[in-house]
Amino acid sequence: MSYTASVVGGSGFTGGELLRLLDGHPEFEVVQATSRSYERKTVGHQHPNLRGMDLRFTDPSELEPVDVLFAATPHGVSMERIDAFRDAADTVVDLSADFRLGSETQYDEWYDGHDRPELLADAEYALPELNRENLPGADLIASGGCNATATILGLKPLFDAGVLSGDEDVVVDVKVGSSEGGAGGGAASSHPERSGIVRPYAPTSHRHEAEIEEFLGLSVSFTVHAVDMTRGAAATCHVFPDGPVGKKDMWSAYRESYGDEPFMRTVAGGGGVYRYPEPKAVAGTNYGEVGFEIDPGNERVVVFSAIDNMMKGSAGQAVHAANVALGIEETAGLAFQGLHPVGAP
Amino acid sequence: MSYTASVVGGSGFTGGELLRLLDGHPEFEVVQATSRSYERKTVGHQHPNLRGMDLRFTDPSELEPVDVLFAATPHGVSMERIDAFRDAADTVVDLSADFRLGSETQYDEWYDGHDRPELLADAEYALPELNRENLPGADLIASGGCNATATILGLKPLFDAGVLSGDEDVVVDVKVGSSEGGAGGGAASSHPERSGIVRPYAPTSHRHEAEIEEFLGLSVSFTVHAVDMTRGAAATCHVFPDGPVGKKDMWSAYRESYGDEPFMRTVAGGGGVYRYPEPKAVAGTNYGEVGFEIDPGNERVVVFSAIDNMMKGSAGQAVHAANVALGIEETAGLAFQGLHPVGAP
Amino acid sequence: MSYTASVVGGSGFTGGELLRLLDGHPEFEVVQATSRSYERKTVGHQHPNLRGMDLRFTDPSELEPVDVLFAATPHGVSMERIDAFRDAADTVVDLSADFRLGSETQYDEWYDGHDRPELLADAEYALPELNRENLPGADLIASGGCNATATILGLKPLFDAGVLSGDEDVVVDVKVGSSEGGAGGGAASSHPERSGIVRPYAPTSHRHEAEIEEFLGLSVSFTVHAVDMTRGAAATCHVFPDGPVGKKDMWSAYRESYGDEPFMRTVAGGGGVYRYPEPKAVAGTNYGEVGFEIDPGNERVVVFSAIDNMMKGSAGQAVHAANVALGIEETAGLAFQGLHPVGAP
Amino acid sequence: MSYTASVVGGSGFTGGELLRLLDGHPEFEVVQATSRSYERKTVGHQHPNLRGMDLRFTDPSELEPVDVLFAATPHGVSMERIDAFRDAADTVVDLSADFRLGSETQYDEWYDGHDRPELLADAEYALPELNRENLPGADLIASGGCNATATILGLKPLFDAGVLSGDEDVVVDVKVGSSEGGAGGGAASSHPERSGIVRPYAPTSHRHEAEIEEFLGLSVSFTVHAVDMTRGAAATCHVFPDGPVGKKDMWSAYRESYGDEPFMRTVAGGGGVYRYPEPKAVAGTNYGEVGFEIDPGNERVVVFSAIDNMMKGSAGQAVHAANVALGIEETAGLAFQGLHPVGAP
Repeated sequence: MSYTASVVGGSGFTGGELLRLLDGHPEFEVVQATSRSYERKTVGHQHPNLRGMDLRFTDPSELEPVDVLFAATPHGVSMERIDAFRDAADTVVDLSADFRLGSETQYDEWYDGHDRPELLADAEYALPELNRENLPGADLIASGGCNATATILGLKPLFDAGVLSGDEDVVVDVKVGSSEGGAGGGAASSHPERSGIVRPYAPTSHRHEAEIEEFLGLSVSFTVHAVDMTRGAAATCHVFPDGPVGKKDMWSAYRESYGDEPFMRTVAGGGGVYRYPEPKAVAGTNYGEVGFEIDPGNERVVVFSAIDNMMKGSAGQAVHAANVALGIEETAGLAFQGLHPVGAP
Repeated sequence: MSYTASVVGGSGFTGGELLRLLDGHPEFEVVQATSRSYERKTVGHQHPNLRGMDLRFTDPSELEPVDVLFAATPHGVSMERIDAFRDAADTVVDLSADFRLGSETQYDEWYDGHDRPELLADAEYALPELNRENLPGADLIASGGCNATATILGLKPLFDAGVLSGDEDVVVDVKVGSSEGGAGGGAASSHPERSGIVRPYAPTSHRHEAEIEEFLGLSVSFTVHAVDMTRGAAATCHVFPDGPVGKKDMWSAYRESYGDEPFMRTVAGGGGVYRYPEPKAVAGTNYGEVGFEIDPGNERVVVFSAIDNMMKGSAGQAVHAANVALGIEETAGLAFQGLHPVGAP
Repeated sequence: MSYTASVVGGSGFTGGELLRLLDGHPEFEVVQATSRSYERKTVGHQHPNLRGMDLRFTDPSELEPVDVLFAATPHGVSMERIDAFRDAADTVVDLSADFRLGSETQYDEWYDGHDRPELLADAEYALPELNRENLPGADLIASGGCNATATILGLKPLFDAGVLSGDEDVVVDVKVGSSEGGAGGGAASSHPERSGIVRPYAPTSHRHEAEIEEFLGLSVSFTVHAVDMTRGAAATCHVFPDGPVGKKDMWSAYRESYGDEPFMRTVAGGGGVYRYPEPKAVAGTNYGEVGFEIDPGNERVVVFSAIDNMMKGSAGQAVHAANVALGIEETAGLAFQGLHPVGAP
Repeated sequence: MSYTASVVGGSGFTGGELLRLLDGHPEFEVVQATSRSYERKTVGHQHPNLRGMDLRFTDPSELEPVDVLFAATPHGVSMERIDAFRDAADTVVDLSADFRLGSETQYDEWYDGHDRPELLADAEYALPELNRENLPGADLIASGGCNATATILGLKPLFDAGVLSGDEDVVVDVKVGSSEGGAGGGAASSHPERSGIVRPYAPTSHRHEAEIEEFLGLSVSFTVHAVDMTRGAAATCHVFPDGPVGKKDMWSAYRESYGDEPFMRTVAGGGGVYRYPEPKAVAGTNYGEVGFEIDPGNERVVVFSAIDNMMKGSAGQAVHAANVALGIEETAGLAFQGLHPVGAP
């Protein structure tokens, strides 16, 4: 193993997912996982899937020097502790929203004041399919948000290929699982209240709109619903192009963008049970699926995009970005398939 | 009890729901439930909730004379057997799509040829909140479809009050439960394949668009997703009005339409876990909920509407319509509350 | 309506269930629901199924005088406030464990010291199928616990009929839903951690053993598992009788005990999907189901018992007991059927 | 890659799981997957997790010569086609029950007549933790059944260490997920009927008792319940030892048997949410978990055992056995961790 790594905020869901991925990664050795609340407990105490892993949480105030530090802390923590993170590691991959936006102006529009606005321009936003060319050698990487990632992956090829002009009205109706609420929960995420729901979770003004605007260059109408699954984000994008769009154009646009992408699959129609992108089909993996249907009645293009919010929407994307940043094989530690069947992903 | 009733197609999900409702209804006595496959079995054999009910399925070819016949048969059966139904009963309430549309032209656009097109004009479409004035004395009633009902209930008050003009672009993104697929199932609705999904179920061209067009006078962009619940239909309508719309206008429109409706509730914001319409909140009942949020960023109105597809979207609506048709108290047999908590409605 | 009622602890799950039942009860008028945390909020704020109910929570320190007070407070509260409860109401029905056991000795064995041990002998344990003869005129009623109720309902007829002697080894393996954990939750009941589980919840020493011992006169080996449903308790009792037991004896024992019981159903075999007692079949209702199978290989009798823990295991049983205590028709307000299908009850 | 492999019966759930495992296995190359119904379809058509895998189903009548053939066909097929299987491959690993029992007498007691009883003695039963010493060089391997595997893994160390004598009464109460019913389904496994259940699935006389008897040398009282998860089998074994058993003895017995086992974990108590074996903790993996609690009241030992029925209970165990048979590193292709959180495993 060529690189040492640490996970700050190791007891949360994305922290646990990073530990799982790094544990199976051929090039990384995990030397530290921090947790203030669970110091000295094994990582398996919080993450039962990792009960066989020989590692205990340590206090976040004492960071080990490592090659790569992954920060899986709540929004706001990374901007406070960024100097300590960069002192400890050559490469910092932040999974929070703290360094995703490009300017203080943008940040202030959606969040409440940034402690270290001067660093915003330094950080590389990481959605490797979008901008992998910026990542090699990057020392501060901001891994993309889950709902933004799902949306961008579905729409961007259509803009790149000119199938869409960028002036269209776009409605994005997202369905997400309960892991987006994080570990710990509260009344709204308790099992009796949360199971079996279709709940408007962010009817309007979800902060991921900021990332979509910045990286897609398009303002979208964005609504997020919570549904009964644990992992997964499915974005349905209803787009109204100026003129008719053909199936061939759509296929060709996705092929152009994703034909060589190791983690992207285009799924549109065919027979069988699974004809479109579904979170179940990618659960637990770094794969993303995109697909579409054309509505003959109203010249609408319906784009479907599905990811695992904790993987391609968070920890998987972060490891993918670190692979690119360090010059490791892109798929290292991420090339495994998902499960079928799987109940609620 | 003042009226006798029968349920044709009593072994399916909506047939069972009708039996449950009629069993608890103060004015109806169920004298027959038919099922070709389960003849002579008790109704509890198919509907375990009704294991205490003393009634056995009989062959559908021998219909008892009754005051009201509820037909809960697959689409296409009612148009074939309508004469026998009308011979047996003074009032026929059909829960299929066979008699919902007003003209053969409309029907042919969405379905494959109607056996008895001359009856289409005679049948009254029943969505009591929309057109209860047409129902008293009606002898052939076509109970509205679940996804259409959810959509129409959410949008119609806004047109009636002039908040929307009817020229707007409207995207309707519906999420439905597995009972819409009916009893019996197939590979797509088997538990391992169906649980935990967000699956594009009718990406475009869902037949309920026909009802919406006809009764709302508006063409909508309509997409249906299957999600992990058993009962429930939640319609999210993304509407782009020509000019700014205020919260007051919205509240006022819903109050005007639904202020005196016994089964409609408007839910929009407030604190707590349940701030908007949710299928869970109305599961098992004839209640419908509507609510909304206004997106300040793009002058979009987001309308939420939730019903139980088997109740207000089917059997409950049918009994409601029968109550109105016969001059019974509207809420008779339907006034009970739902459950909380309930896992997956 | 003949009686006024109040619900102390109205914002919890069983409090909400009581409000639902009393709202639909022909003889009760709810005049007060208390909640310290949600004072002045509507009951629909906590219980979305009751969004149409015109009632607001009030402070529990000021109790209205009523005919019947239902206490749905956490264990330990009733024994502290019992004098205030009895001052406010002629009849107090307590849903907690505070007054279920008959003696201080019994109580101390399973709980930590009773504030008012002298009242234990006064309180009537209420499992109406077991001891309805004690209830008429009772002024302090302790409604039975859910897991104990399921177990007792399954086994008692066999002892009464002499099919079992009472000396048998009995293993009771119970599966329960998430509502047993109450509203509010914590990490263990958060949706991501709680969904899809089979979790040993009380591997040994569950306190409901005390009730079983006292009211069944038998020590059982008792283990409770949490599974993925919201409502429901299913007890599987593995019993090893001294000699052979026939199916006829079993049927006869249940018929003898439950033949005239309005809320009990015996279900054992037959065809179809639902051949045995299941929580789904009774979800939302006051019905209980019992059934059995005989293992030819090892002369074991397997008894299945299913209830809705919030209904027959709590609020339904409490209203049933109040009906009997006041001389109201036993089934008043409780005679409705459950739902089919229903996702997770 | 050193060995070629084929999967006969590749479109079913265990067939798909084998394909997933072999696709990620460093020593196997899959050269054929058969399916009569889906000939020429990609494997991703049936297994959406494998949409990226470049392999199409072929007709089962034309088997390619391979080093190892995995048969994932329904019970009864392997015994019919065993000669063709052995002609095609040096090593046959059968996942059905056809060759699990050691003698025709045993087989006839639980099943209906064996076509090739003379082969029963030749086949090696494979539960590697139990009998890995028999596997090297084996050419016909019968992979153990899921419920039997869970039970045997939990109990055997206690017999081996003398904590239990083998004369005890043992009640095994198993909870399983819907994948045990296989792909395709029927009414009982349709989502509306199957979700949220606690259903007695095999109240008595489950055929896996035969394996337990044969390989554990003990008759057990065995009952299987279906609960709401897709993957997973959890066995709770209630054992009544002759004399007192201490926690130390239990720990020591499990340490002795499983201390060096790569796939076994002992989990018993401690804090946190996950204190005992749970199917969720091992979902998607070849890990098995065992744990216990001692009931002070009735000198009962409660043993918990959890596996993924499709992995350690089927495909994972089969690959594990093939690894041992061929002298490959035991954990090759199986060493990955599971997911956390995961909705319904």
